[in-house]
Amino acid sequence: MEWNFVASETELITAIKAVFASATSERVLIGIGDDAAVVSVPKVRGEGKAVLATDMAVEDVHFNRSWSSLFEIGAKTTAANLADIYAMGGVPEFLLVAAALPTNFSAQDATELARGIVDEAQKVGAVVVGGDISKSEKLVLTISVYGSVKDPITRSGAQVGDIVIISDFPGKSASGLALLKQGINDERCSFHKRPIVNYPAARDFALAGVSSMIDTSDGLVSELTHIANASGVGIEIRTHEDEVIDFHGGEDHVFVATISPHLPFPRQAIEIGKVVLGKGVRINAVPAVHEGYKHFS
Amino acid sequence: MEWNFVASETELITAIKAVFASATSERVLIGIGDDAAVVSVPKVRGEGKAVLATDMAVEDVHFNRSWSSLFEIGAKTTAANLADIYAMGGVPEFLLVAAALPTNFSAQDATELARGIVDEAQKVGAVVVGGDISKSEKLVLTISVYGSVKDPITRSGAQVGDIVIISDFPGKSASGLALLKQGINDERCSFHKRPIVNYPAARDFALAGVSSMIDTSDGLVSELTHIANASGVGIEIRTHEDEVIDFHGGEDHVFVATISPHLPFPRQAIEIGKVVLGKGVRINAVPAVHEGYKHFS
Repeated sequence: MEWNFVASETELITAIKAVFASATSERVLIGIGDDAAVVSVPKVRGEGKAVLATDMAVEDVHFNRSWSSLFEIGAKTTAANLADIYAMGGVPEFLLVAAALPTNFSAQDATELARGIVDEAQKVGAVVVGGDISKSEKLVLTISVYGSVKDPITRSGAQVGDIVIISDFPGKSASGLALLKQGINDERCSFHKRPIVNYPAARDFALAGVSSMIDTSDGLVSELTHIANASGVGIEIRTHEDEVIDFHGGEDHVFVATISPHLPFPRQAIEIGKVVLGKGVRINAVPAVHEGYKHFS
Repeated sequence: MEWNFVASETELITAIKAVFASATSERVLIGIGDDAAVVSVPKVRGEGKAVLATDMAVEDVHFNRSWSSLFEIGAKTTAANLADIYAMGGVPEFLLVAAALPTNFSAQDATELARGIVDEAQKVGAVVVGGDISKSEKLVLTISVYGSVKDPITRSGAQVGDIVIISDFPGKSASGLALLKQGINDERCSFHKRPIVNYPAARDFALAGVSSMIDTSDGLVSELTHIANASGVGIEIRTHEDEVIDFHGGEDHVFVATISPHLPFPRQAIEIGKVVLGKGVRINAVPAVHEGYKHFS
């Protein structure tokens, strides 16, 4: 197929491959350049379980190229994917990247996008092992991740009496987006353009023995509702007078978990409520409304 | 995010989930409905190696909705992905599906697309374990696959003296496409709309001990050139007078391999040439020109 890119297809592929090949691992047995990638799966660590997730980001739906750099878009899409693996109690290891690129994409553009992906992946020691490119009117990026997991942590394990904890206060992404929509693009917007995900906190939560965990892709109330519904319990959130918590802003990838009060409290946890008999989520005794979700994984 | 689909986002997700959940496996420990999927990885069969690939299909680039049904588009994109795993000597097991859907997509449309994916996946016993949806102006489908592999078969193993074999004669997809472009849409076009991939032949080739293997995504000359370049050899193709082989048409997913003449000839193999000292591909002694490629995995 002839594409008439500003850069040739070969130039784009060469640029992307160069970035991904610069950050490989000895566990990649066959990397970019064959029909598929072959990786070594650690038997002891993984104990025969793999954890898989995919995330798609579409220009003008999930990101805006006039606000965010291609580096930020690559990093943010990768972060969403990595957070899903951590929220299952897993450790991400290998990434696949499929990108539909606008025909005005240059080799430099492709390099920036790939660098953002690698920069985020390197925070957790994950490597890109393969991918696919296409052309498209708008940029579409799909990142898929393979990880290992010993004891998966679902949304359905919350028990009455558990404490509800979060890794950070959510809302930074939504407040950045609100500023961008007002035409303000300064350092307060950086978290929206590239969230800083607290992967180590998720690992702490998992190792501490949390009973359920999720990350805030779509907002705290939405995610708490998922836990409440999947676990067949109610969740009571109590805020302190000096706390302002954004319950609806998404894309922060804050980790939300429940943990038995009999277990040691995880180091990075912030307590926000408790699991109770009943159903749904209540904030300071007021029922909270779930605002929808977009993933089916 | 509000999307204003014809169908609500929840309706679309419900429709897709219903199809995927209808074809699951006991090896899916945690399927659709959590942050990520968790699957059981067979230690004996996989011997600690996983094989990973991703393929992206974009409306009006890879398919045309006025020619192909959504069922066919789902099946074809899945086939491209599965063929990549077989071409590495692997067996596909778990799929992730990311779909950017036009806002006029109905729940019935989503069901048809998902059914096509499942129909193809079931041919090889693979199951969809998770995914993501978004909106988009044009339909974009990314399928990622996880498989197991014992002895990976690369493009670089061809040895001078090996026989070049194919699983079927390529060209059916390209000839169907040529008819569609002329406004003819009859049964001769069905292979273009949904290729019939000979997965068992690829498995036979792998078990027979082929030295290299690839599938024809981009045409026979292109794929033979990949093998020749990666292996540091030349390839000589000889056609018989009664044979008409399409060397440039892509998307057939015919398996192309090289095998030692000292090994038993695989049952479904068609011999088309041999591996020689030198470089590049020659057809009936005439150098053949490589027409580009689009994957970087």
